[in-house]
Amino acid sequence: MSRVIDETHDPERTGWPQGAAGHGAFPVQNLPFGIFSCVDRAPRGGIAIGDQILDLGRLAATGLLAGDAAEAARAAAHPTLNAMFALGARPRRALRRAIFALLSDRRHEDRVAPCLVHAADATMHLPCAVGDYTDFYAGIHHATAVGKLFRPDNPLLPNYKHVPIGYHGRASSVVVSGTGFRRPCGQTKPAGQDAPQFGPSQRLDYELELGIWLGRGNALGEAIPIAEAPAHIAGFCLLNDWSARDIQALEYQPLGPFLAKNFCTTVSAWVVTPEALAPFRVKQAARPVGDPPPLPYLHDPADQAEGAIDLALRVTLLTPAMRAAGLAPVTLSQGNARDLYWTVAQLVAHHASNGCNLASGDLLGTGTISAPDPAGAGSLLELTEGGKTLIRLGNGETRSFLADGDEIGLHASATRPGFVPIGFGPCIGQVQGSVGC
Amino acid sequence: MSRVIDETHDPERTGWPQGAAGHGAFPVQNLPFGIFSCVDRAPRGGIAIGDQILDLGRLAATGLLAGDAAEAARAAAHPTLNAMFALGARPRRALRRAIFALLSDRRHEDRVAPCLVHAADATMHLPCAVGDYTDFYAGIHHATAVGKLFRPDNPLLPNYKHVPIGYHGRASSVVVSGTGFRRPCGQTKPAGQDAPQFGPSQRLDYELELGIWLGRGNALGEAIPIAEAPAHIAGFCLLNDWSARDIQALEYQPLGPFLAKNFCTTVSAWVVTPEALAPFRVKQAARPVGDPPPLPYLHDPADQAEGAIDLALRVTLLTPAMRAAGLAPVTLSQGNARDLYWTVAQLVAHHASNGCNLASGDLLGTGTISAPDPAGAGSLLELTEGGKTLIRLGNGETRSFLADGDEIGLHASATRPGFVPIGFGPCIGQVQGSVGC
Repeated sequence: MSRVIDETHDPERTGWPQGAAGHGAFPVQNLPFGIFSCVDRAPRGGIAIGDQILDLGRLAATGLLAGDAAEAARAAAHPTLNAMFALGARPRRALRRAIFALLSDRRHEDRVAPCLVHAADATMHLPCAVGDYTDFYAGIHHATAVGKLFRPDNPLLPNYKHVPIGYHGRASSVVVSGTGFRRPCGQTKPAGQDAPQFGPSQRLDYELELGIWLGRGNALGEAIPIAEAPAHIAGFCLLNDWSARDIQALEYQPLGPFLAKNFCTTVSAWVVTPEALAPFRVKQAARPVGDPPPLPYLHDPADQAEGAIDLALRVTLLTPAMRAAGLAPVTLSQGNARDLYWTVAQLVAHHASNGCNLASGDLLGTGTISAPDPAGAGSLLELTEGGKTLIRLGNGETRSFLADGDEIGLHASATRPGFVPIGFGPCIGQVQGSVGC
Repeated sequence: MSRVIDETHDPERTGWPQGAAGHGAFPVQNLPFGIFSCVDRAPRGGIAIGDQILDLGRLAATGLLAGDAAEAARAAAHPTLNAMFALGARPRRALRRAIFALLSDRRHEDRVAPCLVHAADATMHLPCAVGDYTDFYAGIHHATAVGKLFRPDNPLLPNYKHVPIGYHGRASSVVVSGTGFRRPCGQTKPAGQDAPQFGPSQRLDYELELGIWLGRGNALGEAIPIAEAPAHIAGFCLLNDWSARDIQALEYQPLGPFLAKNFCTTVSAWVVTPEALAPFRVKQAARPVGDPPPLPYLHDPADQAEGAIDLALRVTLLTPAMRAAGLAPVTLSQGNARDLYWTVAQLVAHHASNGCNLASGDLLGTGTISAPDPAGAGSLLELTEGGKTLIRLGNGETRSFLADGDEIGLHASATRPGFVPIGFGPCIGQVQGSVGC
């Protein structure tokens, strides 16, 4: 894992750009990467600091960076971060350290300040061109709760604790936070009907996940040993794996979800690095007595010691009625990424264990993260027990599944005594009417 | 469908380039697109004619093309065909007609001949950068035979005749014919063992499929009506969906195949156009009495009348011992693409029916094509009844699943009285040892 806690985590340091001191998500201890554009310029790489964005291409042009850091900044001066992520961990770390120094010390402020733009003036874009998107199923409380709806006596399938279950998702329909999407049409079979019908999904759901952006890839036919897996991870985001439960129920056997999921997947705009998350790594939750130990290709002592991430997660809902009344979003549930059964290193090592070639800019989802407590479930399917229980929203409205105009927000924050808390920025998506059926 | 049979199918015409007359796969009536390179030049678009390849960029530079045809040729002068396919059907058709005229008439031979290279001097590449790869399950005899291995009394799941079943595959590991691949490692549970083990797959299989290359795409949130679906198809190839049956058995529930399939998918190098296949389109096989009619979004009278493709398919095996003895490959089975339950237009319309955005260069597989007769099965899983029956190869060797060094070839030919037969060129892949486990 080689988790390094260094001066970039020093809680005494603050960034000098506007809004950096005390910023809940983007203090100088975070420095996540993203792709932004302003009115007059094409999309390009930046780093979030407080309420501003540092333009990496402009910074490279100042001559204030050298060596690996300069190389990484130049590679980020493109419409996607794929090239920078392909450089691997060392240049990325060097760039973060260099920027930490420049933003926490006013010595070069006169040359750095012109590289800053106000986040409010920028449009965020997908950080990478997604080559392949894979979604795992590592949230054991989700897998158990969903399994229980179908198999009350045997909720977890026998393979679950041996094999990190995953499937391929659709790369083309991954969109960045703030992009609306249409309710999918599809074949569904309402209770009591003999044959399927075609129309807008009536059971539209969200799924709360952590996303993993791949850094350096591997060649086809070459596995990634688990000890090397962390070096292949460029960073993390929040991921909403929107799901049409009624379409899913009809189509998923025997080959898994397809049209129930591939109409849209939303990710948060900023890529939070493993370096920024280093203070928040924790021991992988102990496997309950009787659980099988991971096979050797999934076992690494360092990963077990600090492979989990203590990251508080929250899902919010803003309905059209709430928006019209000026009300704030309501919290639907809260969870934590440390509840995942497999570590992110295990997911990467498993994915490449058969020789499958991962590439920089690939996106992995962890699977839905639900808390052990049913109130902390990461989807409406679980919160409403398959749609049977209505959720009351406080303003008198109720929901079983999502209505047109509903906006779901995913939020994350990492806190630990002695360290400055960091966040991810929100992952927001809104249901905007239906695809024409 | 707007299937046009025109002068480009005239059996009296022959191409003047070497090897074109009487060529079993690439007579002047075919003219498939591909990406090739020679020693001294980068990969670029070409058209196969006999034993030669016509360089489309060079042809465009002669000034012999005009309008749509010239635009398509210029768009093909790149390392992939994505840009040309994105232009849609009209420029592609215009280019094929123009090239037919130039190659079947010697008037401009002096200017066209310098644009030809010998196929033997060229290396073929993947025709497109594959954005997303989707694999369907439209071979009903395969679905039935495989289902029978698990559920003898109820082989086909209830959704099969309503929903064109499909799942997302891995785009990064799609390779062109002639590329070797390594036997995957993975978790398997041999009979009689309590817990999974990790090691090289012992049940490595092939799957005989037709591949569909997407032409013009659709915007996210916009469906493709079935009547418009054929215009979104740029062409066809052969596709081998290599499968590790022992890995698949352990991992596929509940989310479908993952590491059992994503280590390699092989496609034939040439993209055979819908125009070249026009004479070989046939009526969709009548649904057996009692089968549900397709829902309206999958129903188009023209598609039903001529949506199937009469394309003879053949699988061959060449073992290391056969190679050493100078023996020819043996035929393992023969089938026909007309045995698919869903048409290619139905697959495209279904895929986009929920608003999923398809893009030019996307690849769809039909699913394994097996004949109604078990001897015409499109995989070893079926031919050996799940590995229980050994196949005798004629030279004394036997196989249940693939051994290291085995080479599988997929072959296709379309014939119809009154027309010149055309082929696809082979889809060949060889098992080359194991991924390090």
